Amino acid sequence: MKETGNLFYAQSGGVTPVINATAAGVIDKANEYKSVMPKVFMGHNGILGLIHENLINGSTLTSSQRKQLLQSPGGAFGSCRFKLPEEIKDDIYKRCIQVFKAHNIKYFLYNGGGDSQHTCLKISQASQYYGYPMSCIGLPKTIDNDLPVTDNCPGFGSTAKYIAVSTQEIALDVVSMHETSTKVFIFEVMGRHAGWLAAASAIGKNNKQDAPHLILFPERSFDAADFLRQTASTVSRYGYCIVVASEGIRNAQGEFVSDSNQTDAFGHTQLGGVAASLSNLVVNKLKMKTHFAIADYLQRSARHIASKTDLDQAYAVGAKGVELAINKKSEVMVTIKRRPNAHYRWTLSHTPLSRVAAKERKLPNQFISANGYGITSSAKSYLRPLIGGEAYPEYRHGLPRYLSFAPKLTPKKLPHWNKPAV
Amino acid sequence: MKETGNLFYAQSGGVTPVINATAAGVIDKANEYKSVMPKVFMGHNGILGLIHENLINGSTLTSSQRKQLLQSPGGAFGSCRFKLPEEIKDDIYKRCIQVFKAHNIKYFLYNGGGDSQHTCLKISQASQYYGYPMSCIGLPKTIDNDLPVTDNCPGFGSTAKYIAVSTQEIALDVVSMHETSTKVFIFEVMGRHAGWLAAASAIGKNNKQDAPHLILFPERSFDAADFLRQTASTVSRYGYCIVVASEGIRNAQGEFVSDSNQTDAFGHTQLGGVAASLSNLVVNKLKMKTHFAIADYLQRSARHIASKTDLDQAYAVGAKGVELAINKKSEVMVTIKRRPNAHYRWTLSHTPLSRVAAKERKLPNQFISANGYGITSSAKSYLRPLIGGEAYPEYRHGLPRYLSFAPKLTPKKLPHWNKPAV
Repeated sequence: MKETGNLFYAQSGGVTPVINATAAGVIDKANEYKSVMPKVFMGHNGILGLIHENLINGSTLTSSQRKQLLQSPGGAFGSCRFKLPEEIKDDIYKRCIQVFKAHNIKYFLYNGGGDSQHTCLKISQASQYYGYPMSCIGLPKTIDNDLPVTDNCPGFGSTAKYIAVSTQEIALDVVSMHETSTKVFIFEVMGRHAGWLAAASAIGKNNKQDAPHLILFPERSFDAADFLRQTASTVSRYGYCIVVASEGIRNAQGEFVSDSNQTDAFGHTQLGGVAASLSNLVVNKLKMKTHFAIADYLQRSARHIASKTDLDQAYAVGAKGVELAINKKSEVMVTIKRRPNAHYRWTLSHTPLSRVAAKERKLPNQFISANGYGITSSAKSYLRPLIGGEAYPEYRHGLPRYLSFAPKLTPKKLPHWNKPAV
Repeated sequence: MKETGNLFYAQSGGVTPVINATAAGVIDKANEYKSVMPKVFMGHNGILGLIHENLINGSTLTSSQRKQLLQSPGGAFGSCRFKLPEEIKDDIYKRCIQVFKAHNIKYFLYNGGGDSQHTCLKISQASQYYGYPMSCIGLPKTIDNDLPVTDNCPGFGSTAKYIAVSTQEIALDVVSMHETSTKVFIFEVMGRHAGWLAAASAIGKNNKQDAPHLILFPERSFDAADFLRQTASTVSRYGYCIVVASEGIRNAQGEFVSDSNQTDAFGHTQLGGVAASLSNLVVNKLKMKTHFAIADYLQRSARHIASKTDLDQAYAVGAKGVELAINKKSEVMVTIKRRPNAHYRWTLSHTPLSRVAAKERKLPNQFISANGYGITSSAKSYLRPLIGGEAYPEYRHGLPRYLSFAPKLTPKKLPHWNKPAV
């Protein structure tokens, strides 16, 4: 039942506060199966590490390094945004198979969001096409929480916690000073097409007067006139207004409210600057003093305020992926299932990659309040447990002891590959 | 020696993660002297609370509220930006004295930065002019760390810790993905004229290759051509470049690199948007992919990552202010003194208000490295102890239990005052 071979794991797409915990879960679990999986190779910079044969022997990490993995943000082994060709006959897949063969790799674990799960699926299809079938397992990860099927995605809970806490903190600041200073505060968070992170800002909101007063979701068209009306009426009622804006909001014509004119490897427009646009709108039309913050990478690297639940799930999906591989599962992604209980409990399962590859799950309608600017109680019930528990890193001299890790590459066995333009 | 009378305390200017700890220190210490100071009045919204006779009886706070004060950011009693007139004969000062008399206030404690210390000095001068001399004590507070005489300012250490930790976290994110994604990251922090907060970003930098690679201080003229040269050479050396920019940087002509065209009550230009300007510069001139974060109020409300040292000092300056008042000191501000020891120790002292009122302390030359883009080892020795220790708030259901406090005003004794245009 179990076939001896090495394991390849890589980190892909935008990193998170806890993606390294998934790597730690993979390494720890694989070490329990040393007779079946003698080596764990970590790809340097995601799938590029496979293509360029840049492999890090994860089995050689010291126990102190494995411990630090659990408490360090970013992708310790390097991540990438790189789109594999659609055509399975492309040379690049042949190259992947050559690297698999050269290093006796029989298990492929790929850690990322929808695009990365698509990469995992393509590798599986290519390995079948070239007659080198192997276990290809997707491990979920995305702060955007937009993978379908799984209850939630590792990385989201910690980022959600950062946003929920920051929104409360900003509100305590603004409320203290609104009579003579800022009246409208705009907090820009990530979320290209899905408003999960924006929604998280309201986890701590218990009453109408609590922040955030207005959430701008990418699932709703941005209507400047209505936004200004809502803002003005909030200020007249409470004296100030806290707005949380998803970077991905668009107007009714489908145009982004802010567009930086940069695109990533998948052709997605790179966003940023919604907050400045909204701030200008309020200053010009309502003549109110504004301030704004743009969280950007702060939110997806804030390991110092990680959710314990999220950290546990991130670690567990890594370990589970190894178990699925050992049991000859393939073309599946590990999923998190919520147990139907008042008290939050979760278990792990899996789903075919075809159901998650290049797919996106938006915030469901029943999670957005009727006026379009808030979340419902069912959204809150869904979100709250995901930020549960604190998982502080260890500190020394006032700073977290994050991993500082110079990857040592495994000796190469194949000629240099210089085809993909990276 | 001790004169029976009530105490007035108020919070002024930009709030901090720990200004409420100073309020707690005032309340706790005043409660020890109940026979001399029967009541502690907290001004609602700073000096405006005095003028409008909006007083909160701090002695009535429950012990649980006092405990929550210690762990809540923002200004629990409301703060303000309000400039008192220069002319001591102005009616507004007469009004202040009337409120003092009506509530038998004989001790005035004012908690803020340089502008607020100036307010405290004016109140002292007015009380002498009107023959109602009272103890006027300034309590230092500013995240900008720009008050002279005192070793450092409560509020700075926690904000510095937030910036130092965030810079490390952002760097771990960027380093993981720079080969296929962001090459230049810009982190905008506060600091209108002084680069203390920008400097704090480098507390965790141990080697040349560590982030931040370039710090832009308001103490140095911004030279776009040189900045681009430095950025390009950093990217060619390390593959990426982390820039920390103070909001207050200006070019050689003295023009702000970014200017939001809003001004506050003191006529200071409201800044914000330096990061976007720098990002555009890099994209247009170097054709490199950028990302940026603007911390804005996030940094000055991040109680969740407060420095224990800062929290202790904030509490201690409040208690010390009460002791100075009891001992009939006046027209002084509490200061923090660093003991000349390898191991960090501090004590409290005081300095005449005239030495700190409306003054600013910039980053000294010997703290900025020769090339103008980094800090020296003496800066690091100064900064490091200020972020020492963690002082986590208590959490429930994944969120900090911050104070939610609806101020109950003391019954008024005087007619309504409607002169100042607020």
